[in-house]
Amino acid sequence: MRIAIKSNLSSYKNKVILLVCDGLGDRPYQPADGKTPLQAAYTPNLDAISEAGINGLIDIISPGIVPGSDTAHLSLFGYDPYRYYPGRGVFEALGADMELQKGDVAFRANFATVDANMRIKDRRAGRKGSKELAEVLNGLEIDGVKILLENTTDHRCAVVMRSNGGTLSRYVSDVDTHEAGGVIQKCEPLNEAAVDGEGGSDGEGARKTASIVNRFIKMSYELLDEHPVNAARREKGELPANIVLLRGAGSFKRVIPVKERFGFSAACIAGVSLYSGVAKYLGMDVLAHRYAGEMLDTDTDLQNKAEAALQALKEHDFVFVHVKDSDNYGHDGDFEGKKNIISRIDKELVARLKDADAYIAVTGDHSTPVSLKRHSSDPVPLVIKGDGVRKDNVKKFDEFSVAYGGLGRIKGTDLMPILSDFMGFYMMYGT
Amino acid sequence: MRIAIKSNLSSYKNKVILLVCDGLGDRPYQPADGKTPLQAAYTPNLDAISEAGINGLIDIISPGIVPGSDTAHLSLFGYDPYRYYPGRGVFEALGADMELQKGDVAFRANFATVDANMRIKDRRAGRKGSKELAEVLNGLEIDGVKILLENTTDHRCAVVMRSNGGTLSRYVSDVDTHEAGGVIQKCEPLNEAAVDGEGGSDGEGARKTASIVNRFIKMSYELLDEHPVNAARREKGELPANIVLLRGAGSFKRVIPVKERFGFSAACIAGVSLYSGVAKYLGMDVLAHRYAGEMLDTDTDLQNKAEAALQALKEHDFVFVHVKDSDNYGHDGDFEGKKNIISRIDKELVARLKDADAYIAVTGDHSTPVSLKRHSSDPVPLVIKGDGVRKDNVKKFDEFSVAYGGLGRIKGTDLMPILSDFMGFYMMYGT
Repeated sequence: MRIAIKSNLSSYKNKVILLVCDGLGDRPYQPADGKTPLQAAYTPNLDAISEAGINGLIDIISPGIVPGSDTAHLSLFGYDPYRYYPGRGVFEALGADMELQKGDVAFRANFATVDANMRIKDRRAGRKGSKELAEVLNGLEIDGVKILLENTTDHRCAVVMRSNGGTLSRYVSDVDTHEAGGVIQKCEPLNEAAVDGEGGSDGEGARKTASIVNRFIKMSYELLDEHPVNAARREKGELPANIVLLRGAGSFKRVIPVKERFGFSAACIAGVSLYSGVAKYLGMDVLAHRYAGEMLDTDTDLQNKAEAALQALKEHDFVFVHVKDSDNYGHDGDFEGKKNIISRIDKELVARLKDADAYIAVTGDHSTPVSLKRHSSDPVPLVIKGDGVRKDNVKKFDEFSVAYGGLGRIKGTDLMPILSDFMGFYMMYGT
Repeated sequence: MRIAIKSNLSSYKNKVILLVCDGLGDRPYQPADGKTPLQAAYTPNLDAISEAGINGLIDIISPGIVPGSDTAHLSLFGYDPYRYYPGRGVFEALGADMELQKGDVAFRANFATVDANMRIKDRRAGRKGSKELAEVLNGLEIDGVKILLENTTDHRCAVVMRSNGGTLSRYVSDVDTHEAGGVIQKCEPLNEAAVDGEGGSDGEGARKTASIVNRFIKMSYELLDEHPVNAARREKGELPANIVLLRGAGSFKRVIPVKERFGFSAACIAGVSLYSGVAKYLGMDVLAHRYAGEMLDTDTDLQNKAEAALQALKEHDFVFVHVKDSDNYGHDGDFEGKKNIISRIDKELVARLKDADAYIAVTGDHSTPVSLKRHSSDPVPLVIKGDGVRKDNVKKFDEFSVAYGGLGRIKGTDLMPILSDFMGFYMMYGT
């Protein structure tokens, strides 16, 4: 694309707050008289923004395609996921503050509990991790490949494999298949290795990576099962964290950062490392800890998030604020929970942000209907409020009302160029 | 694209009936007070579906591009026609139950009547074919190319050319130019042969194919003109079927079938071989004959079609039902005819299908305005009804009302992913 970034240097630059409520969209829920959680929630502040702004629906990837949270955020930040998606593990590792180098393959990982036959007793090891056990595994070397491991929150880890010779590949299967009671799967090279030519057109990189994954998992059991930390856990009646399971392989490559691509500085306020990871991948400043401390690791302190966003706005042109819980309640099939967190987002977060000296855009990264307990492709509502927007007739921020808004139905990757133009950092093609 | 098909295996899979009324869309017709046939028709069942469902407009290919019936159906089934269109002849041959092999070039063909100077007297030979004459030509070999010919319905035929050596190419001109009174055109190699590199970058395959087409047509006249079948026809005052004209060359290649691409089984209920051919090309089960017998060869028995669709739904996840006549009346410029067939579709087909235990989607494959007597690019109305759709405010199924629906304006290739997600066979990108 030969699109030039221009900016009207003489004038004041506008700023933007982009609030993404994860899994916000929903479908009509029959037990609630066919309302969606967003319709049922008490949202005077969101509705005021809708009334003052321009509204529409976003197909995050394209109509009918169900977005993952990772691809969804790439798209919302203007990066076509089909071109830029490196695989989930990259975001997890970046979100865990690990440094990545070109050629690294990164994974999401869990401490888990298995019996001596490698049958999974709890794929989350009682949701309890251990920094000490992580250190046992961190720095291992297998067949010329160094393995780095960080325990992030609870049982969760990020793992990076770095080769000092041959190529590694992200095209390997997951060993953590989300099914309890089963035996641990063997990691296998995937066909795409040959298709994409990653790791050599014969898929050699994928075969090598799969072999190292399998040996690493075996080694983790051998090193952890009888470790004093686990002996102590067993003594207290807790599940031992006696193995590490890997999934979501990703391979790191550099992308053009937001500042270079769009021209403005961007900050990320998110409590969950995946989203910080995406933001870091795109060169945003990840500021949650700097401004609001550890409480942002859990997602409930919405007021702190609002203050962090307003702080970030002083030093950045664009502030991305992420709230996770709306998605969690969708996955749980909990209508009341989703409705209530949306009401709280309105009261504790939106109320504080809505009068900031900035454009405000509110949307979701995908729908997570409580009736489905999974992501769906239903488009998500969007509102943009600020100077010069073509205010429409929409008065209520929900999936149905915004369908009649002035933005119509746009694609996820359209949002960032639209916001850029409102900001004055516009992308011009031609003269 | 590394899009994974997922499905919620533990839960009930939803089914879909997709009803495509050929050429359904229209423009306001001044002699009918500016109404379209769909607006003027009596359609209580379609309107009930609209009121209960979500509505919108589809650009079958893209705004302003006039779809053919063949490319339109590829698009509606989720296959981008710019990528997957093999040329019409392939669909005709498959629709005639001919087996195709990679490298085959297939044609639509007509029995026609010419005089001794190769001037066309009737390009349809009085709309009467002959299985016996077809057998005279079937199996001929010219220059190492075997020619297979089937007489389908009336004067229509499908022709397949299969080379035992050099490459053949679909990039040759039509010899049947739809003009009566003219002399038969010579088949010429087309430029695209060189552009696409099909048949060798020098267009050799196209030159060879054109030469064989010309020799075959000449041979058909020599073998048919004085054949006893034609002597008998002349005696009865009928036009002889004394030549075969070819057009719509297509070259066969395998595509990923619907089942593999989307995950669900699909059936086709269509009375016209073109549509069965498209369905077969995409790996759908073509079931019209199995369930409803020969009467589906003509398109008028709508009640039988409804029963066939409901039967097919028992063994398939997705049932495509096609009605042709709405298009025919558009081509004839017959407003009343188009209006009446739509009323009949509503009463005899939609009324029976609308309460099936399945999502129902109704649309057209393109517009065929009676004022134009040809296909046009005007987008076609779409409604989807079923559990969890975001019901909108539309209460009438017509080109104008649905423009205010919750689906907005989508592309033809979006429909299948959207339906897949409703079915539970969703396509997910990312995690």
